[in-house]
Amino acid sequence: MNFKALGKILGKIMILESVLMLAPFLMSIIYNESFYHKIAFVIPISALCLIGLLLQIPKPKRKSLYQKEGFALVALVWIVMALFGAIPFTINGDIPNYIDACFEIMSGFTTTGASVIPDISIVSHSTLFWRSFSHWIGGMGILVFVLIFIPESSDGSSMHLLRAESPGPQVGKIASKMKVTARILYLIYLSLTVIEIIVLMCGPLIDNSALVADNYASCEGDKFFYSMLTAFGCAGTGGFGFIPGSFQYFTPYAQYVVSIFLLIFGCNFALYYLILLGKIKDVFKSEEFRAYIFITIASVSVIFVSLLTKMSAIYSAEGAFRHSLFQVASIMTTTGYSTTDFNLWPMAAQTVLIILMFMGAMAGSTAGGMKTSRIVIATKGSYINIRKLINPRYVPKMKIEGKTLDSKTVNDVFAFITMYVFILFIVVFLLAFDPANGTLTPVVSDLSEKLNNETVHHGFYTNFSAALSCISNIGPGFEAVGPYLSFACYNNFSTFILTLTMLLGRLEILPVLILFTPRTWKRT
Amino acid sequence: MNFKALGKILGKIMILESVLMLAPFLMSIIYNESFYHKIAFVIPISALCLIGLLLQIPKPKRKSLYQKEGFALVALVWIVMALFGAIPFTINGDIPNYIDACFEIMSGFTTTGASVIPDISIVSHSTLFWRSFSHWIGGMGILVFVLIFIPESSDGSSMHLLRAESPGPQVGKIASKMKVTARILYLIYLSLTVIEIIVLMCGPLIDNSALVADNYASCEGDKFFYSMLTAFGCAGTGGFGFIPGSFQYFTPYAQYVVSIFLLIFGCNFALYYLILLGKIKDVFKSEEFRAYIFITIASVSVIFVSLLTKMSAIYSAEGAFRHSLFQVASIMTTTGYSTTDFNLWPMAAQTVLIILMFMGAMAGSTAGGMKTSRIVIATKGSYINIRKLINPRYVPKMKIEGKTLDSKTVNDVFAFITMYVFILFIVVFLLAFDPANGTLTPVVSDLSEKLNNETVHHGFYTNFSAALSCISNIGPGFEAVGPYLSFACYNNFSTFILTLTMLLGRLEILPVLILFTPRTWKRT
Repeated sequence: MNFKALGKILGKIMILESVLMLAPFLMSIIYNESFYHKIAFVIPISALCLIGLLLQIPKPKRKSLYQKEGFALVALVWIVMALFGAIPFTINGDIPNYIDACFEIMSGFTTTGASVIPDISIVSHSTLFWRSFSHWIGGMGILVFVLIFIPESSDGSSMHLLRAESPGPQVGKIASKMKVTARILYLIYLSLTVIEIIVLMCGPLIDNSALVADNYASCEGDKFFYSMLTAFGCAGTGGFGFIPGSFQYFTPYAQYVVSIFLLIFGCNFALYYLILLGKIKDVFKSEEFRAYIFITIASVSVIFVSLLTKMSAIYSAEGAFRHSLFQVASIMTTTGYSTTDFNLWPMAAQTVLIILMFMGAMAGSTAGGMKTSRIVIATKGSYINIRKLINPRYVPKMKIEGKTLDSKTVNDVFAFITMYVFILFIVVFLLAFDPANGTLTPVVSDLSEKLNNETVHHGFYTNFSAALSCISNIGPGFEAVGPYLSFACYNNFSTFILTLTMLLGRLEILPVLILFTPRTWKRT
Repeated sequence: MNFKALGKILGKIMILESVLMLAPFLMSIIYNESFYHKIAFVIPISALCLIGLLLQIPKPKRKSLYQKEGFALVALVWIVMALFGAIPFTINGDIPNYIDACFEIMSGFTTTGASVIPDISIVSHSTLFWRSFSHWIGGMGILVFVLIFIPESSDGSSMHLLRAESPGPQVGKIASKMKVTARILYLIYLSLTVIEIIVLMCGPLIDNSALVADNYASCEGDKFFYSMLTAFGCAGTGGFGFIPGSFQYFTPYAQYVVSIFLLIFGCNFALYYLILLGKIKDVFKSEEFRAYIFITIASVSVIFVSLLTKMSAIYSAEGAFRHSLFQVASIMTTTGYSTTDFNLWPMAAQTVLIILMFMGAMAGSTAGGMKTSRIVIATKGSYINIRKLINPRYVPKMKIEGKTLDSKTVNDVFAFITMYVFILFIVVFLLAFDPANGTLTPVVSDLSEKLNNETVHHGFYTNFSAALSCISNIGPGFEAVGPYLSFACYNNFSTFILTLTMLLGRLEILPVLILFTPRTWKRT
């Protein structure tokens, strides 16, 4: 283990985090917040900067990294970033419990969006900004930052990092050089975020009269601030809410805009590069893209019909369509924003969302979950297995993205899905010991009074959806972790487990397991 | 497709089924049941016999079967047996809806034990006998029967049948000849069943005073009948109840005996052959056996502690231990008998049961589920994957049952688990359209009044556990399909889907998919 080289990279990233934390610090000054809100950022900024610089002193004998070191480093980076990123919340009092604060910021960096804050309306602007900004930072993976900092080496250590961090089984060769790739991805990401902010600013954002009618404080005057936070959450497919009721009080215009941008950020970024090169036809040749579009349309259709049939008294046809589109886009891209209490939707609609929680969006996007490409590969692989049994001499000629589907790819996908499910149920098992199980929680949502359903039970569905939501980096789940409630119901142990689950999901399991395997740290 | 040869074998099995149905017919005579109860068996017996004989007439050109034909035949046999086996229930009026009757007998033959009968106390003896007897027939798989009837051929067609039907990824070479193997397995199966009946007869079976105190009819005088039904259910790891409350009103003696025999029937039958050969040491060398014992002890411990902690007011220490042991044995072996309303157990205990529902017992036993060996192989395979990432030159030397674990075995297991989970969630999705979703069902159990919990909700947990229970061939699930309720809540469409799910689980997915793949039926 090349500790000095690892320390050097880690140190650089810590310095970078301290620079990024200047942004929320600036917010605390702009919004004239209290001394504690300012000092809350000054302390971690100083600590990160100091430790980061100290780590630059030792001179490593070997500059390059082995594969296992690359994997372990990525997992370590996220943990260190979360440990320091959580400090402001505890100092400024918005999340007094440090374990909860770690959950919150890990939820931010992993673009999960699950929150432990029960009442978002009393939280400071600097905290809101830092939460949403962490989505944006985490969204593209610390990958991009890491790539910039790591010296180019001949043994492809940056490739290892890319392999560990990129969401999805394949990144796609956008450009031969890693640094160039990173910059292109980064530029697309930045541009799309800016475009979304502009489009949101062009129309009405928040329905302030409805907000005031429900006895919440008005959000007028902060349009740019909230547009920015919305775009951060979309780009990183994160999903932290920042006004009461997630997106319930946003105007239909804003809800449609967000839906579209969510679906855009759920696409493989390599496709945008193809568009830039003018190869638009190639985009539609992508099996994964076609599957992504098909799943979106099918899911919206099923939910739309389900809402029209069972909840016509509550939603208009336009409303039913808007909520269906928004919720499918939000859950499929593993963002987790909500416009309505989908916890009280008909079972068919809920089950579609649960299945989308497993799937996630395209590989090479900012989304979590298993990824559309894995679903496509696993389906094709299963079909090949059946064909082989029907005819033992059958030679599969199946293709994916133009390449013949080799058995190694298929086997890796099967192995991944198996680990995903195993970890999911281990987490569900660990959550079952939480004292919150079996309790009832009161909930106030847009549907609770109309459907006469003002308490939710904390049962198996809660734990299952909480674990699934965390491993797939979504945010809300069902029952006691539904869209109008928070993860505050869980105790410290469960919160810690779920924090780790988010990281496992975001880094696609293996890097985290490698970090915690003793053999990784043995001398070779 | 060699239709004539397929028809010939199918015909022989139909004749066999007609012979087996003489047993419940005899019961209807012994218990002096009505004309309809007798004719209910006479009609299908005659039909089976007639069609079976007619199918013997065409002379096939080729005697042997291809692999795909073997697979398709097995799936077909189960479907045909269920279609005819369901007839008596509809004629004698115990299950008037034929789709429900098909569900019931498929649940019997697949050794699931899920029932659509809401009140078991008003059902005739011949129906009770036929249900439980179908477990015993299905338990070892029609494998044994099929093997006896199929002509020995050089291309190993019986091997294909074995491969399709044997529960678990490997059967273990007990004897080189298939027919000999079948006879040995069959003899072990029969002997263990007889031993269990004898042991049950030696002690008190049913607590009649408790039964009468709860306003049910006494079961005195039928001790042999009920001992036999108990043993049928244990041997086949089926789980149909035949007096009210499943095993609640059985004496602690009977409950302990059943627990032990369940665990015995959950073992790979090859182990008993090893014992017969005096190689007892080899039994303990089996990784799968050791994992099976470990999982049993760990599960009983967790549930026992959970019950002691949370339900000490209801259970004595002995009672808590007895219920823990019984429920672990029952669920792990995918039987589904219950001694108490585990639907109201603490969440930790429930979650242990859910995980056991996935796992099932050992390969080569009569149990369903994924099988212990697959869990062991998948765990080892995942560990190999991590080791390979840490050190790309790592050469795995992992062993399973004395043989080096080759990558094909590991990949097949990953592929199987992926298909299992995919199918599970497809079924959960289809169940979500059932009108029963969102309703409340009243329930009366040993715990309902004490815990003030006299209605159950039909939600995600219901559908999830129903689908899992059917694919793993268990029987009861949670919430509205809990141990004190039945599958009667589902409509015809859902019942049909669940019937197919039981068959998919029992035949380990592939044969059923092959049967329904159009390519199987193309001329080659």
